[in-house]
Formats: sequence, C-alpha cells, structure tokens
Amino acid sequence: MLGNLLGPEISELIETRNFGAIRGLFEGMPAADIGEIISEIAEENQAIVFRLLPQSNATEVLEYLAPDEQERIIRNLGNEEATRILNDMSDDDRTALLEELPAAIVTQLLTLLSPKEQQVARTLLGYPEGSVGRLMTTEFLTVRPDWTIGQSLEHIRTHGNDSETLNVIYVTDASGRLIDDVYIREFLVRPLEAKVDAIHDNRFLALRATDTQEVALSLFKKYDRNTLPVVDSSDMLLGIVTVDDMLDIQEEVATEEIQKIGGMEALDTPYMETTVAEMIRKRAIWLVVLFVGEMFTASAIGFFEDELKKAVVLSLFVPLIMSSGGNSGSQSSTLIIRALALGEVALRDWWRIMHRELIAGAALGSMLGALGFARIAVWSQFTDAYGPHYLLLGVAVAIAVTGVVMWGTLTGSMLPLILRRFGLDPATSCAPFVATLVDVTGLLIYFGSAVLLLRGTIM
Amino acid sequence: MLGNLLGPEISELIETRNFGAIRGLFEGMPAADIGEIISEIAEENQAIVFRLLPQSNATEVLEYLAPDEQERIIRNLGNEEATRILNDMSDDDRTALLEELPAAIVTQLLTLLSPKEQQVARTLLGYPEGSVGRLMTTEFLTVRPDWTIGQSLEHIRTHGNDSETLNVIYVTDASGRLIDDVYIREFLVRPLEAKVDAIHDNRFLALRATDTQEVALSLFKKYDRNTLPVVDSSDMLLGIVTVDDMLDIQEEVATEEIQKIGGMEALDTPYMETTVAEMIRKRAIWLVVLFVGEMFTASAIGFFEDELKKAVVLSLFVPLIMSSGGNSGSQSSTLIIRALALGEVALRDWWRIMHRELIAGAALGSMLGALGFARIAVWSQFTDAYGPHYLLLGVAVAIAVTGVVMWGTLTGSMLPLILRRFGLDPATSCAPFVATLVDVTGLLIYFGSAVLLLRGTIM
Repeated sequence: MLGNLLGPEISELIETRNFGAIRGLFEGMPAADIGEIISEIAEENQAIVFRLLPQSNATEVLEYLAPDEQERIIRNLGNEEATRILNDMSDDDRTALLEELPAAIVTQLLTLLSPKEQQVARTLLGYPEGSVGRLMTTEFLTVRPDWTIGQSLEHIRTHGNDSETLNVIYVTDASGRLIDDVYIREFLVRPLEAKVDAIHDNRFLALRATDTQEVALSLFKKYDRNTLPVVDSSDMLLGIVTVDDMLDIQEEVATEEIQKIGGMEALDTPYMETTVAEMIRKRAIWLVVLFVGEMFTASAIGFFEDELKKAVVLSLFVPLIMSSGGNSGSQSSTLIIRALALGEVALRDWWRIMHRELIAGAALGSMLGALGFARIAVWSQFTDAYGPHYLLLGVAVAIAVTGVVMWGTLTGSMLPLILRRFGLDPATSCAPFVATLVDVTGLLIYFGSAVLLLRGTIM
Repeated sequence: MLGNLLGPEISELIETRNFGAIRGLFEGMPAADIGEIISEIAEENQAIVFRLLPQSNATEVLEYLAPDEQERIIRNLGNEEATRILNDMSDDDRTALLEELPAAIVTQLLTLLSPKEQQVARTLLGYPEGSVGRLMTTEFLTVRPDWTIGQSLEHIRTHGNDSETLNVIYVTDASGRLIDDVYIREFLVRPLEAKVDAIHDNRFLALRATDTQEVALSLFKKYDRNTLPVVDSSDMLLGIVTVDDMLDIQEEVATEEIQKIGGMEALDTPYMETTVAEMIRKRAIWLVVLFVGEMFTASAIGFFEDELKKAVVLSLFVPLIMSSGGNSGSQSSTLIIRALALGEVALRDWWRIMHRELIAGAALGSMLGALGFARIAVWSQFTDAYGPHYLLLGVAVAIAVTGVVMWGTLTGSMLPLILRRFGLDPATSCAPFVATLVDVTGLLIYFGSAVLLLRGTIM
C-alpha cells in the first residue's frame, strides 16, 4: 500500500539523484513500513533505496523483507556492507534467508560471517527443514540459581541488549542445562537480596530442537506462551522461539490445508514465486487421480445406456444431480476436515457426526429435491420438453437429489474420519474420493429410481 | 488426550469419593493441562472436579476452558465461589465468556462483580462484537515522563502483579493520554537516575478499541509485536491486547475462509457446538444458489437433445468432462483466494495471473484430454460400446476436456479478482459462480465440438 503510493515519487527521486529527499522520507519511519515500501517499489530500485538507509536500522529493515528480496539486495551490496548486515541479523531471520538460497550461495555467504556467527548459522541450518531448530535464536539470557535477584538484574542490565526478549529469563546450571524459565515479572517484584533459587519452581515447558514447527505451534497455543526455550535430548538450553514466528507457521499450516482441500498438493511457496512448471506438477497429480476416478461415471451411465436411449430426457438432469451431491459432500468434508484440524471433533465422535450429517443431509436434500420437482412441474406448464409423464420424472429427480445429497453428506463427513483413522491426512486425500464416490453412486441412485418409477411409461 | 487417558480413572475416583487422590493428581500440573483434562471428562463430572482445585489456580484453569464449559461450571458453583472467580478472571477472558452468554445470564453474573470490575466488564462488552475492545484487558502499567527509571522500576515492583504483561510499559501524561510505549528492556539497561523522558521517542503504534480484530492481526503480523496498546479517538490509553489472542483470531479467520471455500457460510461456532438447525441454515443458502445455477445445465443439454437422441453415447462422458472443469477451476480459485487473503497477489497482477493460469490450464487440460482419448481408444479394442467412430468420439472428448480445463482455470482465477474488485469477499461468492459457469459452458464446449466432429457419422 505504502509502496504503491510512494513508488512513483521514489522512482522520480532516484532518477533525479535526490537521495537526500529519500533519506528524509524514511526518517523516523518504523522499519516494518520501510520494508513494505522497499518490497513494493520496482526491483531495480530496491538495492539503491536500501543503501540509503542509516546503518543503525538497515539490518532491521532487511529482516522484514522476503528471502528473495533479501538475497537480491545482499548480492547488490559491497562485501563490507554485506558482511556487517549478515553478522548483525538475528539468528532466526538469517536461518530463514539461508534456507531459501542455493547451497553454493550459502557457502559463499557463510564465509562472510565471524567464526562465532558462522558456527551458530551452521548449527541452526543443521536442523531439519520445518523443525524448531530452524526457528530459534541463540540470543537469550541465563542466570544461575545461586545468584541473587540484584545480581541477576545487574546481569540483565549489562547483557540485556544481546537477548531477543527480556520477558523470560532462563535459569541454567553450570553445564548449561535448563533448570527453569522465570518471567521477568518475578525479578521485578521480588526483594533484591532474594536468591533466584527461591523464585523458581523447576517446572518449565520446553521444545526440542528437532520437534516439528506444528508441535511448537500447538504448545504455544495450548499454554498461551510468548516465548519457549528449546533444549536438546539432555536438556541443554540451545535457544528460544518467540510467538511472533507462530503466527507465520499457523498461516502456512492453514494455507497448506486450504490448498489440499482445493484438490492439489500444497505449493510450499507464495503463488507468484512458484514456477508455472512446479504449479502444474502439484496440480496434475490430483487432477489425474480425480479424472481416473471419474471415468467410472462413464461406466455407470453405460450400464443404463439402453434406458437412456428410450428416455434421453433423463440425461438432462445428470449434471444437476451430480453437482448437488458434490456440493453437499464438499460442505461436509470441509467442515469435518477443519474441525479435525482444530481438535473440535475426534474419531470417537463419529457416531454423533454421522447422526448430525444425516439429519442435515435429509433436510437439505429434500429442500433441493422439492426445488427440482418444482422446476420440472412449472416448466412443463409452458413446454413439453419433459413429455407427458413429467410428474413422474419430477419425482424421480426429487428422489435422486435427496438420496444423492444424503449420500454426499454421509461420505463427505465419514471419509475424513476414516482417512484419519488410517493415519492419512484427511485434507489431502479426501476430495478425490468423495467426489468419485458421490458422482458414481449418485448416477446409480438417479437411474435406479428413474427405472423403478418410469418403466412402462417413457421407458 | 490427557483427559482420554485419565478420564476413566477420574470417574472411578469420583464414584469412590476419593477426592484426595484427584487433588494429588492435579498437584503441580500446569493450568492448561488441568483445563484440558476437565474439558475431556464427562460433563456431569466437570464441576465436581473443578471444585477440588485449590483457590490459587482455579481461575486460571477456568480461563483455559471453552465458554460453554465455563458457563456450566460457574452455574454449578456456590454464589461465593462464583463471585470470587468472576472478579478474579482477567478482563479479556471474562469478556469472551460474557459475550457468549444470553443477556439474562450476563445481567445476573454482572451483579456478582465488584463495582469496579462491573464497570470494566460493562465497558468492554459495550464495544462491538469482533472489535479490538472485546479482546483487550485493562490490566497494564503506566509511568509518567518526568519519573526516573528508578522510580518507574519501584512502581513496577509494587504494581507489577496487576499487569497482564511487563514486557512493555506505557508512558502517559497526567490525563491518561498515551505518549509512548517502552520495552521493559529500556528500563532494565539504563542508569536508575535517567528520566523516562530521555528514553521514549514519542513514536508508538496503537490500536483503536473500535478497530476490527482483523486489523489488529495485520498490525501484529506486520510489526512483529507481542503487545499493542489500545486508545480511543483522543489517544486516551484504554487497554492492551496481547499476541496470544492473535493466534486465535488468525485461526478463526482461516476457518471462515475454509468454510466459505467449501461452499457455505462460516459457522461462527465450533462444529459440535453449532446446532443442526443453524448448520442447515448456513449450508442451505449456498446449496440453493448453486442448485438454481446448475439448473442451466439442464437447459444446456436440452439444447442438444436432438443430437443426443442420435448419439446417446455422448452422454456417457458428460460427468467426466464437467468434473474436470470443476476440479481445475476449484484449484485455481482456491489458489487465488488464498493468495489474495495473504496479500501475495493484488488486483494489478491480474494479467500475470491470467497468463500463468492459461499456461497451466493448457498443460493440465491436454494431459487429461490425452488420458480421456486413451481411455476411449483402449476400451474400444475390447468392446464396441463406443461404436465404429470411436476415434472421432475420442478426439471430441479430448478437445472438450482441454477446453473445459482451460476455461475452468481461467474463470477460477479471474472471478476472485473480479469479486474483490467490486468489494465482495472472493472466498464467499466464488465457488457457486465458478461451478455454474464452468459446468454450463463446459457442456456447450463438449456438445459443440462433438457436433462439429461427428456430424455425418453417428449424428
């Protein structure tokens, strides 16, 4: 938004080499806003504008940019500037940048880091993709249990600037093993002579560096934390993870779920940054599976070909009936997939879910069935497209719609549970199966009831 | 999970009135875990177990429960206990409980509050549903610009326990107008004699109490904050909002988006807590709209009824072709709806999006078309279901599938942009239009190409 407004102005200032005015524009502006402007101006101007930022907040602005923008800008900086910024970036933001880059560039950038930062960066990149290790920062403060509150506050006063957060202070033993996490509140409201030992309760919640980011998200959500410590298998404190990263993880998880419900593999990268070839690959797989599944509809109709030849009018309502089943099925499966993801329903609720969905299906199905009947009955007052037995045809359509909608809600709601039961991701594999099952079965219900009702009249 | 494991044990302990053992079980357990256990045991036992909790953490446990569980438990408590807990709850959790309850019960519960808390609760409930006011707590700490750091720390030491967070301290003038927000870090790393005036920079970010919760979410995300102050139109500091609420808001927003993509109105309440009648109402509207839209398919087929009479075999592939268009369209619309919601694409990108989607559509469509042709060609070696002109039929199906898939990706990707352009929510109204457009047009493409190719042979 900001960039859209300021973009033309900035381009003009660059063309006229009026760099002072650009500096003035950014003065006092929050880093997030400057970052937003830089992402929205033309790519060729991004590095120019970035170099105009004062050293004091250039790194912070960079941290607000997307990895591909960060890469472009760092490549355009001199070696000295790039070195300063890479060493200055917080651990977690640097990991996020490095994990997106090709290995050759990573190796090159790592050599710019100081030995200490290089060690940190290598360790963090050593954790598997999607793990807590990739999110953590090693910038945290620790105190010892035998220190006094006063000593601890003095320690915080001297080293506070090296820590990502001062909300929580970690208590470790001499070997670096995590003993407790203590809110800064406790340090602030206690007498200065008290020992740290007296305020900590040895109860703390910690993540493992190898935990998945989804595990981290669920712990942050359940325990309402702002910060969680990360330990290794022998409880050594390795780093901390802060809740602002969880908003991003939660967004990614929802995006994956939405894309899977939409009938494809999750893209992993933003839409515009995904190559067309990659996007085709992720979409083709499920489209082919669905297509092969839907081929059974041709067999199902083929089974009734003789009846169709006698009463071609039946084919008019095939799409209407199939889509009713598909739509009601997709409503049910979406509801249940999301409720499962949020933990609102569990497998043991299957009976109550089936009960609810069958009632809903019967209500919705008979509503649509009545509409279908009405359409045929009303139309037949003006045209004889549906022949003299239009009322029977209307009844057949109404029965088929009701049955198909009930079948759609039933399979749509039960399949996610069955998939979950067998350890599969309900979001991934549900849509194809529901669609195929409902379409094929819907045709059988439709032609079956038509044959029963109309044999001897139009067939 | 915990409740599932401990549920039977707890029921047994209740039956045998072994309340001491239940107390022992909970000792030292985090409030969030106790809350989880209580939500998962049988409803009739929830209040019994809750009353066994020590006063010191009963309120905190209650805050981890869902509003309907909170209500059930509070109704089951004696007046004295209910009064204590309601007064003890943090502002935002209490608002979340009260906003879910019927007005009569709210009035009754409000009388249990102390005059001060009652005032706070009424004010917070006065803000519109879904606004920042409903999320905020009035428990925050303020200091004055003319105080020293030492004075401020002393103030924090005495009043720190009344604040929801000590991560940020607010600087206000004598009338309560917000002047700045200062991280606790600044207080901790400065000399005690320095004035607050010297560390604050008058630049702060604040929410309005009447802002929507989505606005709050986007600010928290953009600026990576843990806490934001809330002010009124004359900058008076009213309260604070913390980031842990944003995880819930973001989850709700994603759920709404998913349910709308699934072709219904958003439920607003968890699946199991939504009444069947409510659920039917929210699903019926779009099902009816879709059904009415799909009625045009009957007209489209009716238009080709004479051709169908001559070549009933054409009807075999109607569902296959329609579902290909529907599936590829739903992939495209899901991708674009989500990318719009995340701000990954904007209206001005429409040309690039159309370009990408047409390439993807052509690739995917010809892939599926080739599969369809292969199916007909291979089948025809074993059966004569498709007649002597099966190759021409295969070509007609392949052309139709390719065309329909391209049409599906085009409408699926462009419609969300068009809806957004006219200020409508792309997630809500997209699916029905795409489905109808693609289905009706798909039939026209199919029968059109069949007539062109097969006239003179089987028709």
